[in-house]
Amino acid sequence: MADDWLPSLRTATPLEGFQLATTLARKGVAVTQTSPEVRNRLRPEYAEDTNQLIASSQVIAIHFQTIAAANDYWR
Amino acid sequence: MADDWLPSLRTATPLEGFQLATTLARKGVAVTQTSPEVRNRLRPEYAEDTNQLIASSQVIAIHFQTIAAANDYWR
Amino acid sequence: MADDWLPSLRTATPLEGFQLATTLARKGVAVTQTSPEVRNRLRPEYAEDTNQLIASSQVIAIHFQTIAAANDYWR
Amino acid sequence: MADDWLPSLRTATPLEGFQLATTLARKGVAVTQTSPEVRNRLRPEYAEDTNQLIASSQVIAIHFQTIAAANDYWR
Amino acid sequence: MADDWLPSLRTATPLEGFQLATTLARKGVAVTQTSPEVRNRLRPEYAEDTNQLIASSQVIAIHFQTIAAANDYWR
Amino acid sequence: MADDWLPSLRTATPLEGFQLATTLARKGVAVTQTSPEVRNRLRPEYAEDTNQLIASSQVIAIHFQTIAAANDYWR
Repeated sequence: MADDWLPSLRTATPLEGFQLATTLARKGVAVTQTSPEVRNRLRPEYAEDTNQLIASSQVIAIHFQTIAAANDYWR
Repeated sequence: MADDWLPSLRTATPLEGFQLATTLARKGVAVTQTSPEVRNRLRPEYAEDTNQLIASSQVIAIHFQTIAAANDYWR
Repeated sequence: MADDWLPSLRTATPLEGFQLATTLARKGVAVTQTSPEVRNRLRPEYAEDTNQLIASSQVIAIHFQTIAAANDYWR
Repeated sequence: MADDWLPSLRTATPLEGFQLATTLARKGVAVTQTSPEVRNRLRPEYAEDTNQLIASSQVIAIHFQTIAAANDYWR
Repeated sequence: MADDWLPSLRTATPLEGFQLATTLARKGVAVTQTSPEVRNRLRPEYAEDTNQLIASSQVIAIHFQTIAAANDYWR
Repeated sequence: MADDWLPSLRTATPLEGFQLATTLARKGVAVTQTSPEVRNRLRPEYAEDTNQLIASSQVIAIHFQTIAAANDYWR
């Protein structure tokens, strides 16, 4: 991981906020499974499992709430 | 994906906000399973699985919270 | 679906807000499984599955948060 | 169900708020499984299933968030 | 249960707030499974099941949100 | 556990806030499974189970919401 991959919750646009939410969701996996090799090996498995795709989408949704609030909803 | 599919969280009506929440839930799946062909193949499976239908509805509910707040609840 | 089944998040009473939350939870299922016939066929199955009943209750709870906030908690 | 089982989200104490959250969680089940007889039949099953006990506790937690906010956290 | 085990959501410190969140998560189980004997019997089972440990941690997280807000984040 | 592992929800940076969220998620497991030996024994199992990795990421996301709010989103 880069030394500081999360300098700020501010993003220029909602779309960038959504992308940051995706990053946060992945980092939340990486803190438990710290090996990039293992994560790469596991990825194909859950990318075809709709239960896990929906669960991943949910984690992104929770982080997007936080980021949207941090950006005052880009109003 | 269109270049900027999320220009704003503002919508004209609550119903459009609900539709945007649905879009966000689907995009959250698409960032993990990036192949539209695979997503189309998987769809019939989970569309008949009530567990997954409820889980999808939950992701929409979380995004709808965000969008409703962004629109000051359309008051 | 009626053209605009969600004209507003405002309801006269908390109870009507709870009923609207239930409607939103069901619409979240209907956007993925768009066939009313299939939804009717699936219903008896999950109505006897306590795991799914609890999961449905959770989706309602999330929408109720949104609706309660939209109504300033009916204060 | 009584005609209006949810006249208000206000409660005198946090404990009564927690009890109301429990009621809301159960009502969220009852709107899907409308038969009290079936619900009574299903209860012993999930009351011994820790997965479902935890899931039920989670639904209560979400409703308690709403009720606590509605009561300005009983400050 | 003590007559009033939840006199207030205010705690002196964040750590006490986390402990209160844990109590609330357990009470949410106890309202469904009311027998302390059965709960004690079930505990060893889920204490070794990581799925359920994570799910329990999630319920605590939701209650901690409520308690942290009630204490203005102990600022 | 150290006597007071949670002196404050304030952190200097968003990244430190994310790390604190991870700590909170783990403490939420540790209050149920109090034995560090058992937790160490269980870890390899769920670190290869993508369902549980995603679930862990979700608990972190919920705590991160709380911590971000406590820090006024590091604005």
